[in-house]
Amino acid sequence: MSNELTHFDNKGNAQMVDVTEKAVTQREAHASGIVTMAPETLSLIAEGGHKKGDVLAVARIAGIQGAKKCSDLIPLCHPLMLSSVKLDFTLDTANSAVHILARCKLAGQTGVEMEALTAVSVAALTIYDMCKAVDKGMIVSDIKLLTKSGGRSGNWIAGESSQ
Amino acid sequence: MSNELTHFDNKGNAQMVDVTEKAVTQREAHASGIVTMAPETLSLIAEGGHKKGDVLAVARIAGIQGAKKCSDLIPLCHPLMLSSVKLDFTLDTANSAVHILARCKLAGQTGVEMEALTAVSVAALTIYDMCKAVDKGMIVSDIKLLTKSGGRSGNWIAGESSQ
Amino acid sequence: MSNELTHFDNKGNAQMVDVTEKAVTQREAHASGIVTMAPETLSLIAEGGHKKGDVLAVARIAGIQGAKKCSDLIPLCHPLMLSSVKLDFTLDTANSAVHILARCKLAGQTGVEMEALTAVSVAALTIYDMCKAVDKGMIVSDIKLLTKSGGRSGNWIAGESSQ
Amino acid sequence: MSNELTHFDNKGNAQMVDVTEKAVTQREAHASGIVTMAPETLSLIAEGGHKKGDVLAVARIAGIQGAKKCSDLIPLCHPLMLSSVKLDFTLDTANSAVHILARCKLAGQTGVEMEALTAVSVAALTIYDMCKAVDKGMIVSDIKLLTKSGGRSGNWIAGESSQ
Amino acid sequence: MSNELTHFDNKGNAQMVDVTEKAVTQREAHASGIVTMAPETLSLIAEGGHKKGDVLAVARIAGIQGAKKCSDLIPLCHPLMLSSVKLDFTLDTANSAVHILARCKLAGQTGVEMEALTAVSVAALTIYDMCKAVDKGMIVSDIKLLTKSGGRSGNWIAGESSQ
Amino acid sequence: MSNELTHFDNKGNAQMVDVTEKAVTQREAHASGIVTMAPETLSLIAEGGHKKGDVLAVARIAGIQGAKKCSDLIPLCHPLMLSSVKLDFTLDTANSAVHILARCKLAGQTGVEMEALTAVSVAALTIYDMCKAVDKGMIVSDIKLLTKSGGRSGNWIAGESSQ
Repeated sequence: MSNELTHFDNKGNAQMVDVTEKAVTQREAHASGIVTMAPETLSLIAEGGHKKGDVLAVARIAGIQGAKKCSDLIPLCHPLMLSSVKLDFTLDTANSAVHILARCKLAGQTGVEMEALTAVSVAALTIYDMCKAVDKGMIVSDIKLLTKSGGRSGNWIAGESSQ
Repeated sequence: MSNELTHFDNKGNAQMVDVTEKAVTQREAHASGIVTMAPETLSLIAEGGHKKGDVLAVARIAGIQGAKKCSDLIPLCHPLMLSSVKLDFTLDTANSAVHILARCKLAGQTGVEMEALTAVSVAALTIYDMCKAVDKGMIVSDIKLLTKSGGRSGNWIAGESSQ
Repeated sequence: MSNELTHFDNKGNAQMVDVTEKAVTQREAHASGIVTMAPETLSLIAEGGHKKGDVLAVARIAGIQGAKKCSDLIPLCHPLMLSSVKLDFTLDTANSAVHILARCKLAGQTGVEMEALTAVSVAALTIYDMCKAVDKGMIVSDIKLLTKSGGRSGNWIAGESSQ
Repeated sequence: MSNELTHFDNKGNAQMVDVTEKAVTQREAHASGIVTMAPETLSLIAEGGHKKGDVLAVARIAGIQGAKKCSDLIPLCHPLMLSSVKLDFTLDTANSAVHILARCKLAGQTGVEMEALTAVSVAALTIYDMCKAVDKGMIVSDIKLLTKSGGRSGNWIAGESSQ
Repeated sequence: MSNELTHFDNKGNAQMVDVTEKAVTQREAHASGIVTMAPETLSLIAEGGHKKGDVLAVARIAGIQGAKKCSDLIPLCHPLMLSSVKLDFTLDTANSAVHILARCKLAGQTGVEMEALTAVSVAALTIYDMCKAVDKGMIVSDIKLLTKSGGRSGNWIAGESSQ
Repeated sequence: MSNELTHFDNKGNAQMVDVTEKAVTQREAHASGIVTMAPETLSLIAEGGHKKGDVLAVARIAGIQGAKKCSDLIPLCHPLMLSSVKLDFTLDTANSAVHILARCKLAGQTGVEMEALTAVSVAALTIYDMCKAVDKGMIVSDIKLLTKSGGRSGNWIAGESSQ
């Protein structure tokens, strides 16, 4: 494991890392997360698009817009021009949970891991917001990076790498 | 448990809930979350403010600013004028994790639960961003509301309420 | 008709009108607009929520978020805390058009006419964006204020007033 | 006419279309719109820049800034780096209206039609806002794309194309 | 002089100061600043509104919008709803400079000093931007608070107070 | 000295200058500014990071985020993707002042002078905000461009050039 936090210079001051000379390459990142809730809440979501309105449609839009706001939210993130954002939701009745999966893509100088993680986080918060009138005990968990590809540091897959 | 998702009207269309006639009362919400990481990463954070730069100082600012952006991130949240935002971080070496606690306050017509949850989420994402050069396997979890007070629906404490 | 443009001072310089001493009252505004398109495009929208995805669900969210951004978009608008935003869409097959209706509410010092008009405009632009792959000839028209109530200048209804 | 709404995937879920592999080409789009008003209102605008303050100067700035905010307003728009934005206004005394024309340019992977339409819409809303103290009955209409050029789908001119 | 920096809690961590219990009072702040430039640059600005375009009209709009963005720019500022923003510019040919004066007003729980200072700063930056093609050596200086009134700490006038 | 203000077209209307055909080159700009304050205030800042909290750490983050918001603040600035932002602060006890230095970098079609100046301005405002509870008489001055490099107009160094 490297022991360098690149977001600080050699005096320990926060900085936006200099990527001016990095090559423009195709970048992609996948991230996921889980919102656990009461079974009745999951049932209300499952009815979405039919009678009760579609919680996941709103969360999907919020996640896409959240990915675009990443550099505004995370202080040392570079602004970048996402070329693709996609979110998928899976209802897990066994665990009474919604699984969120986000994929971001870019042809650029920096990776899109933070954009994918932000998309998942904002989608999760939106699910919470839409359902909090009936279930304030929902829990957002397991927000993590699944894979990244592109860039000098190469590919990374969760569980297969020391970093 | 209520079976009404208030963010939809009776035709199932998403809406920003009408709070025009709700009283202005003092509102407060506490939320928390956890970022789990490799022990070496936690050590780097623990050295913050000394040699290596202060990850938590940056995450704290990001969390405060994130709370202020809540209604921009979450589609059906009302804009509001937070009167106080505070974040606390605790290093948990036993579990190799950072615990995040946020408290938001307001004298207004709607609660600040989403603002507190957003503060925690953005702070967690910022910790990930600052440390991802050394540890891409960090996991954000247990983002949840701890307590809320104020407003017509009264107080709520996690684990003590059916909602 | 008054001949005062209040957004300029007596030297002709743009200003944000001073509302510091205006009373806080309940305000409401309704605005509408129309997106005219090819019949095939309207059919694709009409299928929304079933097979093809829901154009109007996305436009609704965009309109609500647009209303919240009004003071960021319109230079001399006051920032305000909308207490309710609601959009309705009606499909008009006779004229091959989507009718958009927005209602904004607030307890505050200034009216919410611009917020309602912005909600309609952004929803209309979003419909255009979602359908432009199949129909670039869509036209947005008849964006107008229908009614306003509250505030010192009182109620206003389109077609019934000289202002 | 194509029957594909590209902003949905094959399951009908909204997505930001993947343009990662599209070539960077010069893109340009022109859009227009009309604000119809009382003749006295048009006269007040016509005096702009002399005694009464310049409504159109403010609307021009708002339109340029609106174009830059397009991807923040329209949920599935890609963020992009506009290389030029220009607005022109024409006073039409015969019809008591202001005509708005916007041109956006970019060297990038996606078109700038939405940016041009957004510039027109925000400029129109700003004219309404600046004059609403004297004329709440103004109507914004005929917001449409005039031409686009660049990109794989080639050129498009209003009235000459089936799309 | 107090030795308390209120933006830190008693452990030295940054926080948004809690104003939940502060009274809503009328607040007002005046701030000023100076942009010094080459005499030829000042002449170009002086011609504004006639042949060459109006640098100060654009700077005025930017300053007003900047005031509204204050809590987004300054991490620990409270969001608030400005009820009035006004900027004045004076051309000082003797010193080849533009003087900027901003006044912000609010009925609220916190002061508007930062909003007035932000309005001045953004207006000054805009003047620099508009003229930098002919004069990159312009200097922005003397940005300072002139007066504040309202709130528990009472009135403050530059030069008359120890704080 | 050129007598062209490029932000206006030949009719005197404000525009975002067309850079569509400009080459992508490496750009860099350095800007600086000074915040003068009471000696006691400087002492409180100097203790930052130890007992009292770190004013400069917050100002540094605000400056970096401010640079990213430049095109949102300055009406005719182009949006761009900064590849590096760095701020340095120097405490000047002789003059009881904080010196701020910002460096921005980009591989793009336009310069980053405004981004560097904005970083300095927002950092200065943040220092004012953090310390205003103890010293409202602080003054921000000498905000200026030091150097720029890259682009067709070539290098520029303060004091060595007629422009």
